[in-house]
Amino acid sequence: MRISELARRSGLPVATVKYYLREGLLPAGEPTAATQAQYSEAHVERLLLIRALLGPGGLSIPAARAVLDVVEDPTTSIHNALGAAHYALPSPRTNPSPEELDRARGHLRRWGWKTDDASPSLAVLAAALHALQSAHFDTPDELMDRYADAAATLAEQDVASVPTGSAAEAVRFVVIGTVLLEPVLLALRRLAQEDVSARRLAPDDSRSRTGPDVS
Amino acid sequence: MRISELARRSGLPVATVKYYLREGLLPAGEPTAATQAQYSEAHVERLLLIRALLGPGGLSIPAARAVLDVVEDPTTSIHNALGAAHYALPSPRTNPSPEELDRARGHLRRWGWKTDDASPSLAVLAAALHALQSAHFDTPDELMDRYADAAATLAEQDVASVPTGSAAEAVRFVVIGTVLLEPVLLALRRLAQEDVSARRLAPDDSRSRTGPDVS
Repeated sequence: MRISELARRSGLPVATVKYYLREGLLPAGEPTAATQAQYSEAHVERLLLIRALLGPGGLSIPAARAVLDVVEDPTTSIHNALGAAHYALPSPRTNPSPEELDRARGHLRRWGWKTDDASPSLAVLAAALHALQSAHFDTPDELMDRYADAAATLAEQDVASVPTGSAAEAVRFVVIGTVLLEPVLLALRRLAQEDVSARRLAPDDSRSRTGPDVS
Repeated sequence: MRISELARRSGLPVATVKYYLREGLLPAGEPTAATQAQYSEAHVERLLLIRALLGPGGLSIPAARAVLDVVEDPTTSIHNALGAAHYALPSPRTNPSPEELDRARGHLRRWGWKTDDASPSLAVLAAALHALQSAHFDTPDELMDRYADAAATLAEQDVASVPTGSAAEAVRFVVIGTVLLEPVLLALRRLAQEDVSARRLAPDDSRSRTGPDVS
């Protein structure tokens, strides 16, 4: 297909497709004339992945290029391609101490999770546990186990849903699913807390009211 | 106790305690002389709550004052006090369309959740579902049900753990638990995904490696 068709299929302006070509995010097409080239279905798939990385994924152009290099490497396993994308996603900036990291690692060891010590989420977990401790909020193993159980249950199904036909499609799915399902999970947790509070903690005569009275 | 003891007990500088008194966040003590007053255990509890609201809670002084007014109202149920705090917590700014809100409400109805139409989390959910749709990521009922189940399981235990002795202590617990456990949950989800991916998607010969190869 020509570049105009490629742009239409991927929902992007032609100028944007040309920009991704210049930046090396999208491989060149097959030249058919001095100023024309042919593009394939692989280019469409790649453009959809670039959109996911730069849009919902929030990656910079160099970070996206690094992920795409791993995805394009034919010797890369799906696991490694997903890992490259996962680790490139923006995380909250944290700077946990070695002791805080050890505490977080202790939980992961208890659960037998196979995760890398370089995982950005390990630092986020360590810093979050420290913030809770500073606020005098206890996080006993029993509480951590509940949260780990919920996370593991979701992750089993999340990973089972990943389309494994191509690394590009798998990575696109994981980037969008990881980033855009996070606000869904947090919103559902707050809504579920509201629901449970209404059923458990509201006095009988206010149960018919539809929510807290903030006035 | 004198103001110096109150400051020490709540871990705040005396100047900060005086600032909260001037702002009307902390009720005045019992005057014992022209320039002296006595403070009670209720003042300590109130200061710990103010710290939670302004610190982890991220509330502005006026928002904290509104929550404290509800907490101090002797006719308020714990549910309403928690609701006032919950709704005052900062949420992502969103502006979902009526159709997007309807879609989110449809899920909540399906689960039979008792939540208020004014809940800020309803708008967050609606906007997040819209973002997923725009990224061509399907969110079938089956997926939403899994996330709702995980959220409901956590919420049941979260609410069961709330200390219900005093509204101030309950609200402090809920503010800190709601806000500071969110990064814990998100970090655990990403770590669990990494663990499951290592076990399900890594080729056998790389299983002994400890994580994705981003090099």
